[in-house]
Amino acid sequence: MDHRYCVIMCGGVGTRFWPFSRQDRPKQFLDFFGTGRSLLQMTVDRIRPLVDPENIILVTNRDYYDIIREQLPEVKQSNILLEPARRNTAPCVCWAAKHIYALDPEAVIATLPSDHLVIKEEEFRKAIDEGFNFVDEGNRLLTLGIKPSAPQTGYGYIQQGKPENGFPGIFKVKAFVEKPNPEMAQLFVDSGEFFWNAGIFLWKAHSVLEAFDKYAPEIAQTLDAPDGVYASPREPEFINRHFPDCVNISIDYAIMEKAANVFVKTVEFGWSDLGAWKALYDTSPHTKEGNVTQNCRVLANDCHGSIFAAEGDKIIVAAGLQDYIVADTKKALLIYPMKDEQMIRNIVNEVKNRFGEGFV
Amino acid sequence: MDHRYCVIMCGGVGTRFWPFSRQDRPKQFLDFFGTGRSLLQMTVDRIRPLVDPENIILVTNRDYYDIIREQLPEVKQSNILLEPARRNTAPCVCWAAKHIYALDPEAVIATLPSDHLVIKEEEFRKAIDEGFNFVDEGNRLLTLGIKPSAPQTGYGYIQQGKPENGFPGIFKVKAFVEKPNPEMAQLFVDSGEFFWNAGIFLWKAHSVLEAFDKYAPEIAQTLDAPDGVYASPREPEFINRHFPDCVNISIDYAIMEKAANVFVKTVEFGWSDLGAWKALYDTSPHTKEGNVTQNCRVLANDCHGSIFAAEGDKIIVAAGLQDYIVADTKKALLIYPMKDEQMIRNIVNEVKNRFGEGFV
Repeated sequence: MDHRYCVIMCGGVGTRFWPFSRQDRPKQFLDFFGTGRSLLQMTVDRIRPLVDPENIILVTNRDYYDIIREQLPEVKQSNILLEPARRNTAPCVCWAAKHIYALDPEAVIATLPSDHLVIKEEEFRKAIDEGFNFVDEGNRLLTLGIKPSAPQTGYGYIQQGKPENGFPGIFKVKAFVEKPNPEMAQLFVDSGEFFWNAGIFLWKAHSVLEAFDKYAPEIAQTLDAPDGVYASPREPEFINRHFPDCVNISIDYAIMEKAANVFVKTVEFGWSDLGAWKALYDTSPHTKEGNVTQNCRVLANDCHGSIFAAEGDKIIVAAGLQDYIVADTKKALLIYPMKDEQMIRNIVNEVKNRFGEGFV
Repeated sequence: MDHRYCVIMCGGVGTRFWPFSRQDRPKQFLDFFGTGRSLLQMTVDRIRPLVDPENIILVTNRDYYDIIREQLPEVKQSNILLEPARRNTAPCVCWAAKHIYALDPEAVIATLPSDHLVIKEEEFRKAIDEGFNFVDEGNRLLTLGIKPSAPQTGYGYIQQGKPENGFPGIFKVKAFVEKPNPEMAQLFVDSGEFFWNAGIFLWKAHSVLEAFDKYAPEIAQTLDAPDGVYASPREPEFINRHFPDCVNISIDYAIMEKAANVFVKTVEFGWSDLGAWKALYDTSPHTKEGNVTQNCRVLANDCHGSIFAAEGDKIIVAAGLQDYIVADTKKALLIYPMKDEQMIRNIVNEVKNRFGEGFV
């Protein structure tokens, strides 16, 4: 029996790529690069050579059940865990661990976001494979740290501590650091000690549940079910009743920043969280004028540093745009300075208020 | 019998409003203001109270026959004159006059463009009505001159000469002047003597045919058919054979600038030739930030002097645009500085070459 499991978290609601991402179709479900596969599908494709398809578990919001069935018809219905409420990553991770522990008390779990970009898939799988082996040998919580390619201020950072004997590239974690300011980010990168927190975690089911008992007991207790509930037909009813009572907290805050047995494996596999347009711009191939074209044909005159994205077989003609986002869907068109992209969240609210839910 | 006729010229191919105007649907066929009526339909609606519907003649390119039948199902098939080739306005005017003269040798004709804006329709009809009366009394070629509201450089101007006794507001024409430079345009407006050439003409069929014989005999002769051909079932065959042999020349060059019996009636009825985006911008209501919205809902932040136009129920969110054209259709999106709109013609060619006919 294969004890390796994978949990893919795909319940996030993303409006930062509005109008492409919408409430009913957040980022992970989009065919971002026009390859014919959504980010979620690519995430599953990427891990499948390493984990028995039977052991791939999706945790999502129940609103997305239909779209997941549509995009991943091969995933068994019982492998889709439907959250009745949005409670950030800690309750999600705890539930998935309890579900898997009930199936296999010796399980080791890789927990992955569903909406990130990985360029070098072989190296990604190699890292996950080594990570599985590392956490299988002891009570260890492992996170992946991405070697930073630039002083990004949009990511959290992990500071490496002392190396773990016998495991090249694996270190004790010295500190988790929130998104830094630009000067700090530059210092981090120059030091060589800091790595981007990619939100990719490996552990034994038993180890992470022990950590929940110790560091987030309120979640562990809220989700404490009588024997025989998890991984049984009674699980959904139990979850629907109790999951909403969990505190809303991230796994980083709840566990990783508190636990003593936390390690980082430093990796480099062409990663981006595709957090917003700028991140997509940075990771995409540029024309010689420094523009990026997503899924559309563009005739650009005196445009620089801009990203053009459209739905369908559409052409864009533009002139004189510097550092702009041009994002066009059937329902909405966004033309916005990239430097102001943090405003998109507010815009989406304003669009909702003025024009209705149908546009967001 | 009513001797009043109207000729509506609607064969023009306009790409200056690309992507809205396209080869297969030029400007006159567009519902420009979202009122449910195209510019052509509005032109017909506007003249109908003044001219028997039986006497309204459309001259167009044969490519547009279907769209005209669709937009104006009430117009008799025999009232639609289909040009087999594009030869500018002089051959078109000559043919229409010969056609109408064959129907009614006493006909007076108002010749109108099909793609202009008229705000004050009552005053327009009053001017046409007075114009009919004026040309009915003698061998006179009358053009309407619009009192300029600004020193536009995009229009040709007509300089008024001495007033015609007994016809207030009607003057001999002193000169036709091509599009002026800005300084000249300002002088024109300040003088009070210059009026925009709106391309609206009135004359007796007999008068204009006499003018063709005298000033453009090559066109008159090319279109000279045996008696009984015009306004008969043999007319289309004759036209298909001979019309393409006509020289390509405008009525202004061929006749108006040469004839001695040319008059201008000065008028003011809220007119624009809607020649391009800037003209549309100028004639449309502005938000307090100086933006214009056509057929769409816009959330604009720090945008000024811009025009936003979209097809369908679409919203546009934009920021930081100064004096831009944003024109969005299902097939193409244009984001272009208004000051460079004369480039749109070149763009359309480039789009055609790079992306194919389907986009223009």
